[in-house]
Amino acid sequence: MSESYDVAGIGNAIVDVLAPVSDAFLLQHNVAKGVMTLIDEFRAQQLYEAFSAVSEMAGGSAANTMAGVASLGGRGVFIGKVKNDRLGQSFAASLKALGVRFTTAMANDGPSTACCLIAVTEEGQRSMSTYLGASRELSPDDVDEKAVAASAVLYIEGYLWDQPQAKAAIEKAITAAKGAHRRVALTLSDPFCVGRYREEFLDLMKTRVDVLFANEEEAKALFEVEEFDGVLQALHAWPGIAALTRSARGCVIVRKSEAHILDAHPVARVVDTTGAGDLFAAGFLYGLTHEKRLADCGRLGAVAAAEVISHYGARPEIRLEALAAEAGLV
Amino acid sequence: MSESYDVAGIGNAIVDVLAPVSDAFLLQHNVAKGVMTLIDEFRAQQLYEAFSAVSEMAGGSAANTMAGVASLGGRGVFIGKVKNDRLGQSFAASLKALGVRFTTAMANDGPSTACCLIAVTEEGQRSMSTYLGASRELSPDDVDEKAVAASAVLYIEGYLWDQPQAKAAIEKAITAAKGAHRRVALTLSDPFCVGRYREEFLDLMKTRVDVLFANEEEAKALFEVEEFDGVLQALHAWPGIAALTRSARGCVIVRKSEAHILDAHPVARVVDTTGAGDLFAAGFLYGLTHEKRLADCGRLGAVAAAEVISHYGARPEIRLEALAAEAGLV
Repeated sequence: MSESYDVAGIGNAIVDVLAPVSDAFLLQHNVAKGVMTLIDEFRAQQLYEAFSAVSEMAGGSAANTMAGVASLGGRGVFIGKVKNDRLGQSFAASLKALGVRFTTAMANDGPSTACCLIAVTEEGQRSMSTYLGASRELSPDDVDEKAVAASAVLYIEGYLWDQPQAKAAIEKAITAAKGAHRRVALTLSDPFCVGRYREEFLDLMKTRVDVLFANEEEAKALFEVEEFDGVLQALHAWPGIAALTRSARGCVIVRKSEAHILDAHPVARVVDTTGAGDLFAAGFLYGLTHEKRLADCGRLGAVAAAEVISHYGARPEIRLEALAAEAGLV
Repeated sequence: MSESYDVAGIGNAIVDVLAPVSDAFLLQHNVAKGVMTLIDEFRAQQLYEAFSAVSEMAGGSAANTMAGVASLGGRGVFIGKVKNDRLGQSFAASLKALGVRFTTAMANDGPSTACCLIAVTEEGQRSMSTYLGASRELSPDDVDEKAVAASAVLYIEGYLWDQPQAKAAIEKAITAAKGAHRRVALTLSDPFCVGRYREEFLDLMKTRVDVLFANEEEAKALFEVEEFDGVLQALHAWPGIAALTRSARGCVIVRKSEAHILDAHPVARVVDTTGAGDLFAAGFLYGLTHEKRLADCGRLGAVAAAEVISHYGARPEIRLEALAAEAGLV
């Protein structure tokens, strides 16, 4: 196999079930606003039935990022576990349609394909309830070391830490990437996820992570600081690249003493923030693997994030390559 | 004279005439929104008559900063020219009441004391029409070299460049400060002011300015860049301290490779942004002359700015020392 990739993404393979809801709905159904909560199959059933006007589409944080990389014209491969059921097949088909390589073997038994029930309130804020299902079955056997070694960047989502079994798979992927002198990128995924695995993330950053993605809340949780400036100062001693997103405030990119403060890309109306961080990472990683300057990597991230928050769903509806060209970035 | 000061401020001595107006008023009377425009005595009369519900209070950019330094418990001296008329006397009395030393000789003839007609629209944005009057008469004779040499920082407002005669006074003050190994701080004052004197400001920064204050628009105009990040990158090569304010987005403090991104201090409601930059500088300079860490200098600036934008007028109504203590900064 002589094919090479820009990014290999590893994460939970999830189908998103989306519904616009009111704040009252969140209260009534006990959904924590703006974050990701893990739920079991029973609760997933309950919530699914309460959701009205649902749409279903392939999601998953790192998978969304891979969709974004492909939409920018980049080459990607995704590693994640679905069951060979209706949702699993639709998940696989969606990545293949975008040109993202996805060859992780589907489970033939066990829990069904993971789903994420996403409640979107009027102001565009999304609250996620995730049933991990088949995605929990990801094992080291699923990691295609050759594909990882052939990718300029290995991109890992923090949500994976919610599955004890995934750690061996992550370890195997990192070893393959480092063995081939590739970069390893980590996204912190969610402030509560950081709360659960803070020590492990910090430990990984010491020696094995080259690029960190985090939003403001995740970064504050990681360094246990109350102010954004505390994050910046904590990163001073870290040799990697940190891409910190701040919603409407834009993003800050830091590499040692180099800092870039970039505005958010303008959006006519924020409809649904689902996938904003995933798509930011897509734009940034596309830039990083195409010799763009650090500030332009951030701008590419901002363009991709702006597209995805202007409509429902976590994957781009407009070809990002065209938007990046319009913005003079490619 | 053995007295010493934290800050010596030099600037236009101006009385503010304030009126809440509508956007329609600005259009009807041809007032450019959000910036400072110089007007002659005739136009000042016209506008003054059109203003309703006026209040008059001592203002002037650097003088407001000195009022803020005093309100924080700092020691200051102000250099600026008024006429010995009603407004001039009220200007002098206001500084003395605050404990700011003000001994510049009043003019006994010539144009009357400067006034600034400030139109404040509903969202708190202020548009200023300035009649410079007596403040134009500032000359090198007015510069008390001993007081400047006895001050830890000399603070100069960019508006002074609008008076050709003031340059010799500025030069004398800088020479006195540098001769005593003091710091020189410059505030850019207004984006159009930067447009008028860009080369001179850049030239001064090369060798004589140690601390730069600018809001986002002023800084972009100075470096002729379109994005805030361009400012940040242009400052990388500059050895001084830059305090960059971004309105609701907070501020960024830069000293070579050290950068701090600080949030704006919360305000229940923005009433009138007049004096926001002046008071930010007050807090920052108080911090700088009291051995505070750079980030805390910025936070002191944010606290002072938050107070002044929460009411009409460009000088603090609440003792800033108490607010800074509440915020744990002093």
